[in-house]
Amino acid sequence: MSTTATLLERLYAGKAKSVYLTSDPTLVVQRFKDEATAFNGKKHARPEGKGELNNRISSLLFRFFRHQGIDSHYVETLNTRDMLVRRVTIIPLEVVVRNVAAGSLAQRLGWDEGRVLPHPIVETYYKNDALGDPLLAEEHVRVLGLLKAGEWEEIRAAALQVNEVARALFAQADLDLQDFKLEFGRDGGGRIVLADEFSPDTSRLWDRRQPGRRMDKDVFRRDLADLVETYTEVHARLCAVSALQDFLLPDLAPAPDVA
Amino acid sequence: MSTTATLLERLYAGKAKSVYLTSDPTLVVQRFKDEATAFNGKKHARPEGKGELNNRISSLLFRFFRHQGIDSHYVETLNTRDMLVRRVTIIPLEVVVRNVAAGSLAQRLGWDEGRVLPHPIVETYYKNDALGDPLLAEEHVRVLGLLKAGEWEEIRAAALQVNEVARALFAQADLDLQDFKLEFGRDGGGRIVLADEFSPDTSRLWDRRQPGRRMDKDVFRRDLADLVETYTEVHARLCAVSALQDFLLPDLAPAPDVA
Repeated sequence: MSTTATLLERLYAGKAKSVYLTSDPTLVVQRFKDEATAFNGKKHARPEGKGELNNRISSLLFRFFRHQGIDSHYVETLNTRDMLVRRVTIIPLEVVVRNVAAGSLAQRLGWDEGRVLPHPIVETYYKNDALGDPLLAEEHVRVLGLLKAGEWEEIRAAALQVNEVARALFAQADLDLQDFKLEFGRDGGGRIVLADEFSPDTSRLWDRRQPGRRMDKDVFRRDLADLVETYTEVHARLCAVSALQDFLLPDLAPAPDVA
Repeated sequence: MSTTATLLERLYAGKAKSVYLTSDPTLVVQRFKDEATAFNGKKHARPEGKGELNNRISSLLFRFFRHQGIDSHYVETLNTRDMLVRRVTIIPLEVVVRNVAAGSLAQRLGWDEGRVLPHPIVETYYKNDALGDPLLAEEHVRVLGLLKAGEWEEIRAAALQVNEVARALFAQADLDLQDFKLEFGRDGGGRIVLADEFSPDTSRLWDRRQPGRRMDKDVFRRDLADLVETYTEVHARLCAVSALQDFLLPDLAPAPDVA
């Protein structure tokens, strides 16, 4: 394991991250980009500093999750933008956990945003931009052959476990974790592991100090506030949480340029 | 039970049917209208004869289903447009069974229309025009409190049983039953019963004699052929199926006018 892992060929270019091969075939680097998109790419901006913030926040959370018994692809944080992770095959599902009705769920149920659900729920969306990331019920996931027997239950249980741990953690930062999106991958042995990121890009965080204030990507989607200022405050609040003191990142070097 | 049941106050006006109270509080009349709508009401027409055809086809199928052990709200066919049914409280779910990918499922999965599913699947949609009848996963149905414990499984099993019986029956009329929508209601004792209708309005029927020919509401949605001519042929083919000979309707009087 080297903090000087060299980024080789780009394996994948996503909207907010790119993935690069390294000299170790079992490891890849996730580079967090200063790119913000919403509404399936229709809205777009380049907020300077966003990549670093999401790398820092995701790294911090993955380090903490591991200590709580939730394994992920995270290996280490290489620099301001780059996260070294185990190479996994991403399952093309967006696994969404929700504690309150917001966004598309509020629309689907005809409920007001913010209405608390009687219990947390797990939704699955097909990670497929061309199709607009549609909701999938269990039947669709099975027909698409995305999961093997038992994996539907395994992923749901893992997602609910993340919710329990993360919700309690964000509460200590005076943030209500209302919903979030996870992605899972399969490692070389076929084992399912948490992957991707956990950041204000992929979650809804509502401020407990100023009711009604959003501290997540909705500030960008709905033009409510400056994205980088908002994420900076989320990061600062997390860094002040006592439970996270053992997991803070060391000083990070600037990210090197890549071809 | 009277074939001269008097239609009293209109209880409910749907797009293709209205429901009327009768002098017996446990019975209501479903009147099938000459109305065709598609795309959540955006497309509309008044095809003369459609109401009678759907009443005749649904009646015939419900009579046959009962003999196959599938109970429904059906009591008797009063006249060309009116079906006497038990009064039930409709559960606001559209329960869709699919044998092949077509319509919204083809779009959702990114599959070609007509691709056969590895096994029949059951989907649930929220029967809510204002929300556009969105897909619901099991989690949503539970959160909305639409079903009690065990009823999710009960409805799915019932829907698959209807599929087995109906698919075999339509095959005898040289029609492939590709998908269909059911609605269920609760009777006075809280028992779940099959309700609504089963017609070319609520199913996809593909002709086995002329591959590619649709014999269902898609002829209206997609302007492929005359709706009434098409439904007339479906009805005629069903009336010729030997398994249905014991369930054919007696001569029907014209429907009386209602207030």
